[in-house]
Amino acid sequence: MKLHTVGILGGMGPAAGADFVRLFVQACADHLRASGAPVTDQGYPEHWLAQLPIPDRSAALLAPETAEDPFAMMCQGLDKLQAVGARAVAVACNTAHAWHGRLQQAYPQLQLLHIARVVAEGLQQQGQQACMLLATQGTYRIGLYDQALAACGITVHLPQEAERELLMRGIYQGVKADRMDQARADFAAVAQVMRARHGDVPLIMGCTEIPLALPGADSVQGLPLIDPAWELARALARVAYGD
Amino acid sequence: MKLHTVGILGGMGPAAGADFVRLFVQACADHLRASGAPVTDQGYPEHWLAQLPIPDRSAALLAPETAEDPFAMMCQGLDKLQAVGARAVAVACNTAHAWHGRLQQAYPQLQLLHIARVVAEGLQQQGQQACMLLATQGTYRIGLYDQALAACGITVHLPQEAERELLMRGIYQGVKADRMDQARADFAAVAQVMRARHGDVPLIMGCTEIPLALPGADSVQGLPLIDPAWELARALARVAYGD
Repeated sequence: MKLHTVGILGGMGPAAGADFVRLFVQACADHLRASGAPVTDQGYPEHWLAQLPIPDRSAALLAPETAEDPFAMMCQGLDKLQAVGARAVAVACNTAHAWHGRLQQAYPQLQLLHIARVVAEGLQQQGQQACMLLATQGTYRIGLYDQALAACGITVHLPQEAERELLMRGIYQGVKADRMDQARADFAAVAQVMRARHGDVPLIMGCTEIPLALPGADSVQGLPLIDPAWELARALARVAYGD
Repeated sequence: MKLHTVGILGGMGPAAGADFVRLFVQACADHLRASGAPVTDQGYPEHWLAQLPIPDRSAALLAPETAEDPFAMMCQGLDKLQAVGARAVAVACNTAHAWHGRLQQAYPQLQLLHIARVVAEGLQQQGQQACMLLATQGTYRIGLYDQALAACGITVHLPQEAERELLMRGIYQGVKADRMDQARADFAAVAQVMRARHGDVPLIMGCTEIPLALPGADSVQGLPLIDPAWELARALARVAYGD
């Protein structure tokens, strides 16, 4: 069996990038077991993680005149991932998918997976008709999941403006600043009010920082939590194994 | 401040490589906080993780006539890490350090950190005079830690042969096969008998798979556990920040 070398573009933030590799390795182990192959070091496809100091994606979307554009540095990462032999790349940041179209156009030889499409197709296969979305202001602004979910016939419930600010606080002053308790409290509060409004429909944790802090919080007990990074990691493993 | 790009040679096994990136990111965050800098995505140095299907290191050391030599594929990884701009590289596998000398000679422009020397220097700074070592048969065979610890004037206690076999079972049929309960039971049993023989001296978890399963086991409560991967990750962060 010929495995394909794959890449992960991370650094957005670095903790989420590291966690994405963990998920990818887990997805590969699951794949080996499911196919009856032994789980050994040599059973994994070659994979590369690139963590570059990519400018802030939300800032670039919300204040494009003043904030630095992350596109050029994402291209640096993809240049090098292509140079080391990657055939497909997963971008370990939801908001960064705002540049997915431009990046895919600039790198036609690379298969650039799309996190929201992977999630939407998974929910569709489960027969889900509605879901809730926790994400960054940038992700809401570009309608990343809205488009992908609409294409699969799934209704998406979004938080209100004050709730979105709370999510941003949990991401920036919580996870990215390595204050996990703060992050958990903020994410859990938003999840609680949304659950009260919309019921027990799947909750998409649509920023790679959110699954690092939210699971385990009381307010999401019993709620189906969708980790797009996990869905993306599984999709990347399928590509690496040539499925 | 100019940061240096650094690399991590992993895949030995992939779960340990992913965990090493997590530790490196944590070490960088600690470094930023200690220096009073904000912990943001852009504060981290560029870093790359290469996970290649490198042939088994212990097998190559124990049966060099029949097992595949991992040297060539480690060189493939270093070639590419050098190509993407890495100036220093940490190898996320203890046993692989058997090839450290040959690799450093083959890549004189790369600073190849040495996991056992980093650990020995750390224990010396703490004023420790003795320690215990859990590792692979390959690591015992090459005396990786023995040399580095002796150079720092530290006595090292090793497990007996049957105990070493138990460690190998925990590593291969436990962690590498994703059976963590099995791994924890095997590692904890060896730690218990060694602690009874040698007392509460620091225990070096000298295989990157061991810290994935041993901490938290009853038999090591209160024992100083040294995670060489954490010490190596901190050393790599110091290089990346130009200390």
